[in-house]
Amino acid sequence: MSNTKIPYKIYLDENEMPKQWYNLRADMKNKPAPLLNPATMKPITLSELSEVFCEELAKQELDETTPYIDIPEKILNFYKMYRPAPLTRAYCLEEKLQTPAKIYYKFEGNNTSGSHKLNSAIAQAYYAKDQGLKGVTTETGAGQWGTALSMACSYLDLDCKVYMVKCSYEQKPFRREVMRTYGANVTPSPSMETEVGRKILENHPGTGGSLGCAISEAVETASNLEGYRYVLGSVLNQVLLHQTIIGLEAKAAMDKYNIKPDIIIGCAGGGSNLGGLIAPFMGEKLRGEADYQFIAVEPASCPSLTRGVYAYDYCDTGAICPLQKMYTLGSNFIPASTHSGGLRYHGMSSILSQLYHDGYMEARSVEQTSVFAAAEFFARVEGTLPAPESSHAIKVAIDEALKCKETGEEKTILFGLTGTGYFDMYAYEKFHDGKMTDYIPTDEELQASFATLPKIPE
Amino acid sequence: MSNTKIPYKIYLDENEMPKQWYNLRADMKNKPAPLLNPATMKPITLSELSEVFCEELAKQELDETTPYIDIPEKILNFYKMYRPAPLTRAYCLEEKLQTPAKIYYKFEGNNTSGSHKLNSAIAQAYYAKDQGLKGVTTETGAGQWGTALSMACSYLDLDCKVYMVKCSYEQKPFRREVMRTYGANVTPSPSMETEVGRKILENHPGTGGSLGCAISEAVETASNLEGYRYVLGSVLNQVLLHQTIIGLEAKAAMDKYNIKPDIIIGCAGGGSNLGGLIAPFMGEKLRGEADYQFIAVEPASCPSLTRGVYAYDYCDTGAICPLQKMYTLGSNFIPASTHSGGLRYHGMSSILSQLYHDGYMEARSVEQTSVFAAAEFFARVEGTLPAPESSHAIKVAIDEALKCKETGEEKTILFGLTGTGYFDMYAYEKFHDGKMTDYIPTDEELQASFATLPKIPE
Repeated sequence: MSNTKIPYKIYLDENEMPKQWYNLRADMKNKPAPLLNPATMKPITLSELSEVFCEELAKQELDETTPYIDIPEKILNFYKMYRPAPLTRAYCLEEKLQTPAKIYYKFEGNNTSGSHKLNSAIAQAYYAKDQGLKGVTTETGAGQWGTALSMACSYLDLDCKVYMVKCSYEQKPFRREVMRTYGANVTPSPSMETEVGRKILENHPGTGGSLGCAISEAVETASNLEGYRYVLGSVLNQVLLHQTIIGLEAKAAMDKYNIKPDIIIGCAGGGSNLGGLIAPFMGEKLRGEADYQFIAVEPASCPSLTRGVYAYDYCDTGAICPLQKMYTLGSNFIPASTHSGGLRYHGMSSILSQLYHDGYMEARSVEQTSVFAAAEFFARVEGTLPAPESSHAIKVAIDEALKCKETGEEKTILFGLTGTGYFDMYAYEKFHDGKMTDYIPTDEELQASFATLPKIPE
Repeated sequence: MSNTKIPYKIYLDENEMPKQWYNLRADMKNKPAPLLNPATMKPITLSELSEVFCEELAKQELDETTPYIDIPEKILNFYKMYRPAPLTRAYCLEEKLQTPAKIYYKFEGNNTSGSHKLNSAIAQAYYAKDQGLKGVTTETGAGQWGTALSMACSYLDLDCKVYMVKCSYEQKPFRREVMRTYGANVTPSPSMETEVGRKILENHPGTGGSLGCAISEAVETASNLEGYRYVLGSVLNQVLLHQTIIGLEAKAAMDKYNIKPDIIIGCAGGGSNLGGLIAPFMGEKLRGEADYQFIAVEPASCPSLTRGVYAYDYCDTGAICPLQKMYTLGSNFIPASTHSGGLRYHGMSSILSQLYHDGYMEARSVEQTSVFAAAEFFARVEGTLPAPESSHAIKVAIDEALKCKETGEEKTILFGLTGTGYFDMYAYEKFHDGKMTDYIPTDEELQASFATLPKIPE
């Protein structure tokens, strides 16, 4: 098909959709450092991990060798309700930029959760159901992950308890109502339902809550209820595994038209979207079959790759989950309250951290006003109003396309458009009203945060 | 392909997408009654109509004979950014209902405007631009049409002035921000910018505004500004023409897999989505080539087809636009304030009115609590959270599927899922909290409203 004109949108046929996830670790020479049990500070075993996650997910979390893992049929069927996600040729953007670059984006926003999070939510809910569990608990900030998990649980008749950071619960009632539509039990956090919640409310009456507190409440609830597990929407190896559906579909669509990307760009918070998008391409690079330039884009206000340290750290503020070695700003790092652009996680997936450490991937940080400017520009030119998170990738894709305009290079750029910004209009409003500011943590702030990193015995 | 398993989603290839709109009037033996000029109460001429709409649109409005009209290339390219819209087989819904019926829906919500309105917005903006106009004005209530028009104007570098009903402007800031993202000038109505606005504010200080008032402000502004025209999102023949892209795509997708629907269902406010969806199927019925059952679904609180009269009436509360013969509740009819489900227009497209009058189509009215129950059920089973408007069609599609369950008939049902409900979460919240009520106007209320219909000289 190389001479065919590339359509605006490439949708794979149903029978061309991937039937396996790809486990990138199988092709990594330097594997990510092992997870540590927070109680012992020793590498965590499968049986220990199975107390935290359901068994099949614990296996996936630790599996470094199986390259392909079959996607269960029930998950494949769920995927068919909102996938294949389109690979889109950004003809209008190219024309507007007057660039010789060819720009593609993989769009994950065509579902009610509005993002790629659903890809892993359904997998985690499926394995929980398959193990005979009654329900799952989780936390949510802005609500994307909570929405995705609610949808997945509703499909599988699994109970879903979401602790939503109280200020979001009150300020963003829409996401909350979406979750309720899917039958989820949504509790503003901190709540009186948990010991940790009661303690926080006693010490800080009237607090608006935090993600760290919501995680702790979700974990406590899961451990107190028979047949419940706590689930997480990013960072973990299992989540990256499920998210490879993004990259596998993108690569299949590109292969179908003989398109080879030169640069692959994704936004990076915990790393689930970026890891999923680049996986099959990175696999080729690791195996020496092809070369690609990979760029992780993170907010300047939460710059774990570009300014963090590569060290063992807690995944959660509550220090309950296993520790992992990753680029981190310290588990107590919280981006300034002026930050509206998402991607606020203090660390980075251990797989991506290792790849970055080994020089397979670049990272850039961008400031949020420039991100929202890119978002608005993109919306006007390509139609879709992007999520602030996704717009980090848009910003750098545009930067790269403009470089091509200068040099005359006809590079092919692929970026991940993880979702839509329909529930982020307060942030857009701030931007329109000129009230959005940028924030970059000082070296002193970061050093102070690094000082709180846990000491790991050799 | 008749033996192939039907995929969950059928996307036409780009080269299979329709390149012409279909003008249903060409196949109607009884044409819709002519539009009347409100000044003379005589059939309006092309030149008179060209003062209201731009020329090409005025021609389309009056053209009763040309069966197919080429879609200009620029519009085709815009369509490619968010079309083809998927024709979806509702496998999960069928399974949940345990019905032998086969259910399909044409989903028009995969774009930032969240509805089918964009199909006509881009066409109207295109012809305005093509005629050398500077901009367009319009009104918007909840904001779907305003958003669609903003997106279209942004793409074409056309100025867009939207008068948004003040209470919506204040209570629904998200839609307003979406429009601002696309560069539209959004003014809460009534405003001090227009004579009619100033008069209303003088007489009713602090009023939250109304659609009728917003229309009047938009029309006044268009007539006062050099190079501007007023545009409308539904009801008109031209709008139904543009919306036939929905039905043409749906039919092409069904033909590709040898699927023939028995029942075709759409929600009906002004009629643009229903008219667009059924057009090519209705054409076959009118030409005697095939038979289908068509069902228009309207809210019980605004029942123009099921309880209105077939008469000449004003399209707008301000009585400025041409009159058309249609099923109407009277141009001053306003559904009760408890009505949350959209579809609040007092009349019905003259094309659909004529077809209904001639017995080619049925109509049903449904109450909003049952509509929201169907919406929530659908969201949980099929994933997508539907717009309240679309959920009227869902309700009747489910009713028909359950009838098939009783009789054992394996009917094929096609319905229009016009959009998503992401900006309608206040209504969902009301429903979740048990605060939603139903309202059916009394016969006395309707009779009083009919009494205000204009007297047309014989």
